[in-house]
Amino acid sequence: MNKEQQALHQWFEGKGWPYWTPHEILARLMEETGEFARLVNHQYGPKKKKAGEEVQDFEDELGDILYTLACFANTHGINLDAALERSIDKVQKRDQNRF
Amino acid sequence: MNKEQQALHQWFEGKGWPYWTPHEILARLMEETGEFARLVNHQYGPKKKKAGEEVQDFEDELGDILYTLACFANTHGINLDAALERSIDKVQKRDQNRF
Amino acid sequence: MNKEQQALHQWFEGKGWPYWTPHEILARLMEETGEFARLVNHQYGPKKKKAGEEVQDFEDELGDILYTLACFANTHGINLDAALERSIDKVQKRDQNRF
Amino acid sequence: MNKEQQALHQWFEGKGWPYWTPHEILARLMEETGEFARLVNHQYGPKKKKAGEEVQDFEDELGDILYTLACFANTHGINLDAALERSIDKVQKRDQNRF
Repeated sequence: MNKEQQALHQWFEGKGWPYWTPHEILARLMEETGEFARLVNHQYGPKKKKAGEEVQDFEDELGDILYTLACFANTHGINLDAALERSIDKVQKRDQNRF
Repeated sequence: MNKEQQALHQWFEGKGWPYWTPHEILARLMEETGEFARLVNHQYGPKKKKAGEEVQDFEDELGDILYTLACFANTHGINLDAALERSIDKVQKRDQNRF
Repeated sequence: MNKEQQALHQWFEGKGWPYWTPHEILARLMEETGEFARLVNHQYGPKKKKAGEEVQDFEDELGDILYTLACFANTHGINLDAALERSIDKVQKRDQNRF
Repeated sequence: MNKEQQALHQWFEGKGWPYWTPHEILARLMEETGEFARLVNHQYGPKKKKAGEEVQDFEDELGDILYTLACFANTHGINLDAALERSIDKVQKRDQNRF
């Protein structure tokens, strides 16, 4: 597990907290991606806000999504860095095979 | 995840590809979280599959979600590791303030 | 189109409002399903609220999702009643073919 | 949509099937909205398909989302037509109060 995932795990373990169930984490992911979607519509959609602190807002929303994914990953022994690396590899291989 | 974000960026740049628009990335995120949800329902839901290669499957789905988030992050100069770290900090501070 | 879809359409037409683009409606759908997910986690998840006005709350969230779907349906000439009926038919036929 | 909800209910009752739990229905909703998102990206996104049978495809995806919502609504005694009507009323009232 990567550094942030480990910190999260040690914190939960120190507190004696269980992680949520997979379905509860999923519901939370849906909630967090929904908040991200609202921000995208606010910045780029029909009701455009003035540009401003948007990068910080987006970092917050992405962070909350990643937090949810890290909880799931920690309960399944998955390293998010490795998962992302494998996904990039997959897309690159698929792209190479086009030619 | 920052190392992988950089690799992704160099690959896109080398190819001369633009990233998708925020709304297109959002639609892709919805698609990828939907595939993750299907897998959760398969493993833990009403039509349970036999346990098996599920960790690998989950790593694949999480990786695809992270790939989508990395595309968005790269277009906004956001470091996913820092975003996750800030979200963990926020939850920990909120927790401390309860007592 | 069904009765509610027609009322929606006449209202937009009377105001001279365009519907949002498909991607903007999709982002809104993601936001509304996210709010629905939060309510499900509140009522049935790790932080259970006291039972109370939940049916009304759920009706509100479902209504907002349906509103979003109706906007999309109206821009594509789709009748939501017929769409639901076809989906039920499909599941029933799939079920019959199991035996 | 109420007629279809009743037909769905009688079918489940006749079969002696329980509905899924709220969290399982939510995971299914996420899956179905994900398929809808994929179709939107295919028709309107970066990899545009040729226009063709898209209206039928969209009706199918909307129908599957509505089926999932109808399962949830039936377990909570919610009428989808009334829910949509209330949501339209709410938006119209909010609009009137702007002026």
